[in-house]
Amino acid sequence: MRFLIKFSYDGTNFAGYQRQPGLRTIQGCLEEAVLKINNQIPVVITATGRTDKGVHALEQYAHLDLNVAITPYKLKRALNSNLPDDIYVMDAKEVADDYHIRQHVVQKTYQYRLNMATYNPLRRHYVYQHNYDLDVKKMQEAIVYFVGTHDFRAFVTENYLKENCIRTIQEAYITYDSYYPGELIFTFTGNGFMRYQVRNMVGLLLKVGNHKIEPLVVKEILDSKVRGKHGCRAPSCGLCLVKVELDENIK
Amino acid sequence: MRFLIKFSYDGTNFAGYQRQPGLRTIQGCLEEAVLKINNQIPVVITATGRTDKGVHALEQYAHLDLNVAITPYKLKRALNSNLPDDIYVMDAKEVADDYHIRQHVVQKTYQYRLNMATYNPLRRHYVYQHNYDLDVKKMQEAIVYFVGTHDFRAFVTENYLKENCIRTIQEAYITYDSYYPGELIFTFTGNGFMRYQVRNMVGLLLKVGNHKIEPLVVKEILDSKVRGKHGCRAPSCGLCLVKVELDENIK
Repeated sequence: MRFLIKFSYDGTNFAGYQRQPGLRTIQGCLEEAVLKINNQIPVVITATGRTDKGVHALEQYAHLDLNVAITPYKLKRALNSNLPDDIYVMDAKEVADDYHIRQHVVQKTYQYRLNMATYNPLRRHYVYQHNYDLDVKKMQEAIVYFVGTHDFRAFVTENYLKENCIRTIQEAYITYDSYYPGELIFTFTGNGFMRYQVRNMVGLLLKVGNHKIEPLVVKEILDSKVRGKHGCRAPSCGLCLVKVELDENIK
Repeated sequence: MRFLIKFSYDGTNFAGYQRQPGLRTIQGCLEEAVLKINNQIPVVITATGRTDKGVHALEQYAHLDLNVAITPYKLKRALNSNLPDDIYVMDAKEVADDYHIRQHVVQKTYQYRLNMATYNPLRRHYVYQHNYDLDVKKMQEAIVYFVGTHDFRAFVTENYLKENCIRTIQEAYITYDSYYPGELIFTFTGNGFMRYQVRNMVGLLLKVGNHKIEPLVVKEILDSKVRGKHGCRAPSCGLCLVKVELDENIK
């Protein structure tokens, strides 16, 4: 039986999503929880993608196969009782045996949060604390260059350079948070994001906000397809996968 | 030189405010940070009051004496560079040598947060997760009984029973959070609160919300001055000291 699960996690105390020997990872914890349900038969969990160390997810999906018969509701309950309190399974449903999660992702939305107001210890794991004012208007001008279908190889690590780096970003914009004064949110919605892509895009936008570069330089770097000397990655704690839109068939 | 400091903390990883041998406490961390600034001469820090294990503060004040000459701005900077990331000093100012913080507190506001919506791992240290719906209307009816000047000995631990338990609560009300859907906030503003008082008041209100008792029973228990069989304490993680109002002289 193949199941689709919807889950969320606080990335603070994980070495990222992907299973790694000897490290506490989200995949590792999920697979360990499933092991107990699946009569100790190991199960590989396939998510829509990975997130890095310290990155959070308010909505993530994965598929997995079980050798035991269980209802989706009982699977959800059993997973949550075997999972630590920084991962939570919100939903589970049965899917076709040939269902593969990666074929059903329509778009993903990431948000990057940055605080320009007084440091708040209660928010320290969820925002990047930036103690200097940023030119939000200039960054808003620059972020628009990311919208559309582009070869994003200037915003990935070397490992990706032999791969297809063409992705489409439907929306990219900056807003002030309505609740936490001084928190700025960079929102990116696209059909897919490569490793470090969002943090590298935000890192470059911060250079615009700090008046190190003009907004147009963002377009130039994107067009050049070369990371170059302005390459800069924003810290992981501000990043959160907030939404994954799947196609209608399984919703 | 006597200084007044304004600070905030995430109570999650502390064994409470008060210094205790061998335990990580807020007072302990503050005094250790001051030790480095004060040429290794120990300093006692006096706050407006204590908070328990797991309880947070967005605004707390304390006074302390230093043997070294330092400007308030440099003191703030030096403290923050010596403090862990779950405590933050927002402000420091010099005060008169006979200034005692406890004589200047006009009122304090505590908020207790409870989540009735889907568990969110990013909020787990800041709300009490309550998986069953509560009758908010009934709780709103009951919370009003706490407003006014009362002998609150029915809401404290035995240790307090020989002390004066008369306190004044100016405001007590329940609101839905505008940002986190499903989060309920119990707000209490008063001239002072005793240990466990807020959590015991919330614990009793939850019994009203769960239809275990009628709202009027809250008034009866308050008037009886006896904790009694309905005594119930809400978990610490939902509690936060959000505001301390000091008198005008030092603002």
